[in-house]
Amino acid sequence: MAERFEIVQKALVKMLEEKKYATLRDILITMNPSDIAGLFTDLEDNQIPLMFRLLTKEQAADTFVEMDPDAQELLIKGFSDNELKEVLDELYVDDAADIVEEMPANVVKRILKAADPEMRKSINQILRYPENSAGSIMTTEYVSLRPNMTVEEAILRIRRQGVDKETIYTCYVTANDRTLLGLISVKDLLLADDDETRLKDIMLTNIISVTTQDDQEKVARMLSKYNFLALPVVDGENRMVGIVTFDDAMDVLTEEATEDMELMSAMTPSEKPYLRSGSIDLFKNRFPWLTLLMVSSTFTGLIITSFEGALSKVVALTAFIPMLMGTGGNSGSQSSVTVIRALSLGELKFRDIGIVLWKEVRTALLCGIALAAVCFAKIWLIDHLLFGNEEITLLVDLVVCLALALTVVIAKVVGCTLPMIAKALGADPAVMASPFITTIVDAVSLLVYFMFAKMLLPI
Amino acid sequence: MAERFEIVQKALVKMLEEKKYATLRDILITMNPSDIAGLFTDLEDNQIPLMFRLLTKEQAADTFVEMDPDAQELLIKGFSDNELKEVLDELYVDDAADIVEEMPANVVKRILKAADPEMRKSINQILRYPENSAGSIMTTEYVSLRPNMTVEEAILRIRRQGVDKETIYTCYVTANDRTLLGLISVKDLLLADDDETRLKDIMLTNIISVTTQDDQEKVARMLSKYNFLALPVVDGENRMVGIVTFDDAMDVLTEEATEDMELMSAMTPSEKPYLRSGSIDLFKNRFPWLTLLMVSSTFTGLIITSFEGALSKVVALTAFIPMLMGTGGNSGSQSSVTVIRALSLGELKFRDIGIVLWKEVRTALLCGIALAAVCFAKIWLIDHLLFGNEEITLLVDLVVCLALALTVVIAKVVGCTLPMIAKALGADPAVMASPFITTIVDAVSLLVYFMFAKMLLPI
Repeated sequence: MAERFEIVQKALVKMLEEKKYATLRDILITMNPSDIAGLFTDLEDNQIPLMFRLLTKEQAADTFVEMDPDAQELLIKGFSDNELKEVLDELYVDDAADIVEEMPANVVKRILKAADPEMRKSINQILRYPENSAGSIMTTEYVSLRPNMTVEEAILRIRRQGVDKETIYTCYVTANDRTLLGLISVKDLLLADDDETRLKDIMLTNIISVTTQDDQEKVARMLSKYNFLALPVVDGENRMVGIVTFDDAMDVLTEEATEDMELMSAMTPSEKPYLRSGSIDLFKNRFPWLTLLMVSSTFTGLIITSFEGALSKVVALTAFIPMLMGTGGNSGSQSSVTVIRALSLGELKFRDIGIVLWKEVRTALLCGIALAAVCFAKIWLIDHLLFGNEEITLLVDLVVCLALALTVVIAKVVGCTLPMIAKALGADPAVMASPFITTIVDAVSLLVYFMFAKMLLPI
Repeated sequence: MAERFEIVQKALVKMLEEKKYATLRDILITMNPSDIAGLFTDLEDNQIPLMFRLLTKEQAADTFVEMDPDAQELLIKGFSDNELKEVLDELYVDDAADIVEEMPANVVKRILKAADPEMRKSINQILRYPENSAGSIMTTEYVSLRPNMTVEEAILRIRRQGVDKETIYTCYVTANDRTLLGLISVKDLLLADDDETRLKDIMLTNIISVTTQDDQEKVARMLSKYNFLALPVVDGENRMVGIVTFDDAMDVLTEEATEDMELMSAMTPSEKPYLRSGSIDLFKNRFPWLTLLMVSSTFTGLIITSFEGALSKVVALTAFIPMLMGTGGNSGSQSSVTVIRALSLGELKFRDIGIVLWKEVRTALLCGIALAAVCFAKIWLIDHLLFGNEEITLLVDLVVCLALALTVVIAKVVGCTLPMIAKALGADPAVMASPFITTIVDAVSLLVYFMFAKMLLPI
């Protein structure tokens, strides 16, 4: 399908170049806004306004929302005041607020000037909420009904107001002061036996809501857990201020997973898509972490230096350092990533730390003993017999494998504990993933290794 | 909120123990099925059927779907044939199919016997599709309309059929042979100006659909991209067979992100929640990867062994091995994770490999040179001057930093290339993350290190 789309894309761009506007318009009208927005990424800057003006009014707004910020900025700068107003009038306020957030100050000023007073107020309200809060991703356009309305009146109201609402399928029953009293779905309204039933008698009253300050990831997970189309957002006095819809929740889930993966591999999270990030952006996100980890590996260097004497007596010991540190790091990151993900999915809480430790210790013992056994055989068969390294005696082999087993256990304990502690302290557990665990485990594995060497070898 | 819920939970379990069934029933009726299912995890096996029988018929089915497979199995085994039939009748077929997949053979037999013939057929149909395909997550219960129906007739039909459908909000207009002709939303029906308009005149005909064989992740991403409530699933002849709804798509997105994170940290992905995985399960998912990586680190051992002579002449060189390998590994995993995520989000295709390489090489040069500069200063100031290690000369410092810069560049190139190649070969790019990249980069960094040492130092 993707390939088919690219062929269409090239054909359309060619039509634009050849000025076949009528045909182009006929084709565009059949396309989905999301796909039309995709077309714009391949256009030259001067072609963008040209193509955009071929869209119908409604398509134009829906497409505009899906475009990347650079193209949006370019278009806004080229718009007449009237054109800008037309596009804005068709936007949902949460989308408008998203766009405003990405634009430079002078463009923001133009947008707010062109928006009607109601929208301007809503945009400003949404922008005031902290980043990543429910308030910042909600929309203020929902259908609100009154408890005394009949089913028929409710349907009539939806028919009259529905056009401008992001979803009409879940409606909110509120008191005069906007206190949230209940909710009712269009399905329930349509399937109601009697058109004269009052909403207060059929509405759901066990409402699940979030507050404007709740974290967006929590909101998205709740939506996903309860399979809701939308979640109501209330203020501190249980007054309805907006809704978060499933499509925004899906974007949040994807965004948060990406952010976790970036943190887990020691990068500053960025919301920019890869192809739109310049190498300077990438450098800024990556370099500080690499430096921090590099400097902290000074400790492993110090440990090796202080055991230089021992190493020079049994030089073969050096050859196993990378294997030990590598296996330790991998064991630790397995545990940390498992725990981080379970924490972020809400499967684990800090109070489960006992259960987690017990589970990880048993797993670590199984892994450690099994790995040590495999390693013992491997060293003896490959390194000693096959490659004929005489320096590797049974005792050296034993030291390596004992160190390996203990390292795996310590690595898994460290790996599962640190993210839980980070969570308890209110930090993001994802930071406690592979790179940090590895740096700690590197030092630990060396200490363990040299301890066994001192105990068992004549050094 | 979570804390409040736990208090309620304890109170409810206590009521059950004290046989206050009437009160308990009154409270349960106000609760959400997803939360009720949460209660069951804290119950003893013999309390589970007791609590379950307190639920209303409709609550019972909705709660049953949300329970974990162990509790479901326990309940099914205790159900009379009649009870089982009642629960099954209330289930959506895709949920029923999910449950069937988790149950042992004898339970499956009982379920299929108790299901009505239509549901049995649908369950069997869904189970025949490959795992992770659109067919395996779809439901066959959607509202289908005919092109010649008027808006009024359509609404009437929805009112009559809607009860049993997973979503009524997007309806599918099909021909007599089930060929998908168009779609129309309840919003469009409700907001239509004229009740006598025929569907064929107002339905959307630029249909976006998937086939039963399409990958579930692709389907979920499409749903998210287009902000659809549901996507139609068609067979090879464009005949409608089912729909995938947004709630299932959300679960797929979460599941696929978890799977990628597990693969990225060298574990076999598992769908079992952490707290329900035994240590034997965890061992099985982790041990093979640790072994594979451990054995492949034989190469780094061999490289060190072959340079033993050099190392014993300038012992200080050994101390920098962990730092070099660590920084190389971190640099590589930054690039690989970024590329893997972009591939999985559909932001990158294999044909972009040129752009990716160019971007990563520039980033790598920036990182490599900056890191080398910091490292040079750090070694001289801390290791040489502060700790007074005389063996670390300016030349040794230079060797380390040259090796560091080159390692970072190679690591980033390897890190971005391998996932792209895996993708092109049809393998899962997530496998090409940190652990594998690290193993390769470990060997490379040592070779680079010893090459510079041989060139610049008297060894």
